[in-house]
Amino acid sequence: MENKKSPLNWECPLPELDFDVITLGHGSGGLLTNKLLDSGVFDLLSNEYLDKRHDGAILPGGLAFSTDSFVVSPIFFPGGNIGELAINGTVNDLAMCGAIPKYLSLSFILEEGLPVAKFWDVLVSIRKACAIAGVPVVTGDTKVVERGKGDQIFINTTGIGQVHPRARIDPQRVGAGDVLLLSGNLAAHGIAILSVREGLSFESDILSDTRSLHRVVGGLLDRFGEGIKLFRDPTRGGVATALNEIARDTRLGVEIRQDDLPIDEQVNSACEILGLDPLYVANEGIFLAWVDPAIAGDCLAWLRQTEEGSQAAIIGEMVPEHPGKVILQSSIGGRRVVNMLPGEQLPRIC
Amino acid sequence: MENKKSPLNWECPLPELDFDVITLGHGSGGLLTNKLLDSGVFDLLSNEYLDKRHDGAILPGGLAFSTDSFVVSPIFFPGGNIGELAINGTVNDLAMCGAIPKYLSLSFILEEGLPVAKFWDVLVSIRKACAIAGVPVVTGDTKVVERGKGDQIFINTTGIGQVHPRARIDPQRVGAGDVLLLSGNLAAHGIAILSVREGLSFESDILSDTRSLHRVVGGLLDRFGEGIKLFRDPTRGGVATALNEIARDTRLGVEIRQDDLPIDEQVNSACEILGLDPLYVANEGIFLAWVDPAIAGDCLAWLRQTEEGSQAAIIGEMVPEHPGKVILQSSIGGRRVVNMLPGEQLPRIC
Repeated sequence: MENKKSPLNWECPLPELDFDVITLGHGSGGLLTNKLLDSGVFDLLSNEYLDKRHDGAILPGGLAFSTDSFVVSPIFFPGGNIGELAINGTVNDLAMCGAIPKYLSLSFILEEGLPVAKFWDVLVSIRKACAIAGVPVVTGDTKVVERGKGDQIFINTTGIGQVHPRARIDPQRVGAGDVLLLSGNLAAHGIAILSVREGLSFESDILSDTRSLHRVVGGLLDRFGEGIKLFRDPTRGGVATALNEIARDTRLGVEIRQDDLPIDEQVNSACEILGLDPLYVANEGIFLAWVDPAIAGDCLAWLRQTEEGSQAAIIGEMVPEHPGKVILQSSIGGRRVVNMLPGEQLPRIC
Repeated sequence: MENKKSPLNWECPLPELDFDVITLGHGSGGLLTNKLLDSGVFDLLSNEYLDKRHDGAILPGGLAFSTDSFVVSPIFFPGGNIGELAINGTVNDLAMCGAIPKYLSLSFILEEGLPVAKFWDVLVSIRKACAIAGVPVVTGDTKVVERGKGDQIFINTTGIGQVHPRARIDPQRVGAGDVLLLSGNLAAHGIAILSVREGLSFESDILSDTRSLHRVVGGLLDRFGEGIKLFRDPTRGGVATALNEIARDTRLGVEIRQDDLPIDEQVNSACEILGLDPLYVANEGIFLAWVDPAIAGDCLAWLRQTEEGSQAAIIGEMVPEHPGKVILQSSIGGRRVVNMLPGEQLPRIC
């Protein structure tokens, strides 16, 4: 099992890396996750589907396919638990591919000693989240690991969807001038998790924004079709990381305005108290949409009269200048570069 | 979060159970796993696909869909590692549905502190197993948990396949008189894991039988089509558990003959030394097939000239007597009931 000598990898030698061990940052969804994946993982497994590096793969026949493992800690948090997060998370990843979610798989890794009643509560939440989303769990698996080799419950959900007939979601279609919509308030999920984890309490409870987004995404596609170029849900790594990934992939610049970022007042105060930039805090129930400027106003108006999109806002646009970079115009008039989440801000947020 | 009072489950109260906590046995694949799932999990999430309780779901359009999480310990073992096990395991679950595997998802839960070189070795094995099976990984996910909250690497793979045009795999088609084929030697995977875990060494190394089975299954279906009624891979819980599940689901009896069970001599000796009944030991590279008696001889002859099936044997048949029960005719002429694996023989075998 000795690494560099392993017979396994003499054909595929371990790349030169500036890290020897996996750290929490490699699971942040930010810079270190990208660094790990770029270190050779994508090259090793390369194929036409994986190479697109989207949240899911689009297969022949318009089939969308996406997977996510959920390791959130604690498993119960204000506004939700790991069960509904796992259902909504994969439903939303399919929606971000422009697909209508159809079927889910559900796989548990349980820790020995988990009270069955807790497992039951998670299952009941899964049932409710499936009913609300209208997507069934059609196959599953259950494993158990020894005490101290897991952490109560880990869940994998993998989903199959059908691409919406009017969807033409593709980062290559994003051009300078395209408008950036954010569907709702920033940073609620991350702050909800952090508050319970750190034992903080705010004036009133801040709840996770976990919810399924496929209906509002489907509604946008019904109405605006190919005017919508791209969706992305800013989960791990927050809005900052999602924007940086798209700036990198489109080789365009992103301009956003601090004053236009929708955020709940309490969540904003909590971020200030905790010294967190809300642009890096994880979200579970909002999405970014890149849309043709000609339809941006109509998109916003339609979004704002939906429940999921009532706080939607136009937060910026794509520009030909500073390709690959995200620039924030601050409230006080300054301009600064917003980078990808460099390390691990909040481990195990989803 | 208090359980019985939880607002979550007042509509779906926790069922009366004779266990309060999850134990390793609930992950055995045997009796306790079935008990846990029967306690209400299947009822809670019930739908036409899940209710079939197969290794995977068959969706409209002949799409097969199957998921598995792999938590094998140790992650490297004689004859393989968790990476190739994860690819072959899901490929085989699809094959057991009579499907040709097409696409896989791959999701990691890594433990902080894992040497990157070990991760790389697992990735290289995944690449090789994908190349051998001819099935690509098209989408993925990576999470990291704190040291002591996981165990090096857990992997979920979920697969999509296309049902073979000649397949009519359905437990309801199994009838009295149908012949039971076993495609190869028993118990190699479990003994390989146990030997390294317990620090045992046998005269020569016993290797895991991990391999993909979809080609030989496809070959059988090409030739014998609907003459094949059912496939099942006897992984966790071994051949005994797989046979009991089918006896239960078909409401028929199963008769098997000890003298006809194919087993490697060394593996058999190891089982004797360890006091293990090979019928309960996990396998990864063999399958059971229920076939029409008219074609059983031809099936066996064809199987035996394949690499995967060179040790194949007819091990018994379905009978109208003793419905739901598996009876073994022993070498010395006695007859005994073979039950499902009652507890957890070898935790974390896959």
